[in-house]
Amino acid sequence: MKKAYILLAEGFELLEAMSPVDVFHRGGIEVKTVSLDDEELFVNASNGTTVVADLAWRDADFSDADLIYLPGGYPGYENLGKDPRVGELVKKQYESGKLLAAICGAPTVLLKNGIGFGKTVTSHSCCADEMSAKYNRTGRPIEHDGNLYTAIGAGHSQDFSIVLAEALDGDVAKIKKGMELDK
Amino acid sequence: MKKAYILLAEGFELLEAMSPVDVFHRGGIEVKTVSLDDEELFVNASNGTTVVADLAWRDADFSDADLIYLPGGYPGYENLGKDPRVGELVKKQYESGKLLAAICGAPTVLLKNGIGFGKTVTSHSCCADEMSAKYNRTGRPIEHDGNLYTAIGAGHSQDFSIVLAEALDGDVAKIKKGMELDK
Repeated sequence: MKKAYILLAEGFELLEAMSPVDVFHRGGIEVKTVSLDDEELFVNASNGTTVVADLAWRDADFSDADLIYLPGGYPGYENLGKDPRVGELVKKQYESGKLLAAICGAPTVLLKNGIGFGKTVTSHSCCADEMSAKYNRTGRPIEHDGNLYTAIGAGHSQDFSIVLAEALDGDVAKIKKGMELDK
Repeated sequence: MKKAYILLAEGFELLEAMSPVDVFHRGGIEVKTVSLDDEELFVNASNGTTVVADLAWRDADFSDADLIYLPGGYPGYENLGKDPRVGELVKKQYESGKLLAAICGAPTVLLKNGIGFGKTVTSHSCCADEMSAKYNRTGRPIEHDGNLYTAIGAGHSQDFSIVLAEALDGDVAKIKKGMELDK
């Protein structure tokens, strides 16, 4: 069974973070949400909803991560971008060749950490200029270049989660059937 | 500003409940999640994720509800269906002419409470037979008959939330722009 970690920073986008949790669980992929705090499991989404993370940062061992996933949301993606532990983690994940995904404003976390410059990516319109300076930023809903997966924003969270589930050998037919997407 | 209540029973479907929270918040519609427990705010989704509800049942005054929304998920929809307080609330909401919405397995809550028999609805395939006995159950992704809105399953949560946001005079253009659905 493949394993995915979803990083939850204060101000994360609710659907961008919860879509992969839901979809991966349906598809037989193990998924853990991780709070950036060393102890606190409660994390507030950008719209105010509080979610209880599965793990606090200090209890997360990411060495078995087949996927590290970065949700956007403001100021969630900024909080991810300024955390050096996140920078180190995503750099290591990218260099290992295992999957790294970012949606909405979170592709700027790659930018800030010098990851994958020149690759084809997408991101929210809000950070189109800064992303275009270092990447081939297309503005399409979803992009995939090597082990780097990116998506443009919350409205495409579900489709992005299904693309990632497929890349993680999840049971996509089961996901689509359960969610009534197979008709 | 219109107001919506999302009822959270143990075992609710995560995206079915969180999509309207996210979409309504973006569209300028007040939205409150309500735990069925009289005191406890923590509610577990069917996939195990714990969400902190905005209100416990005894603190919720539904008299200003422009929309009552019932998520599906197993056993969430069964827990909604067997709670007489929920039955009374949705009956009152339906009879008042204000909006009532149910997705996935939650249309069976209408069935159990004798609400809107003969109306055109949809529901998850799992409850197609029981729904078809009392309703014109179409199996389309989303249906709308009078003040009754229904959707087939989790994969259509976002579209359903946008349809409801429009019915609640929410700012749909702003929703679509923020979620990158306007391209």
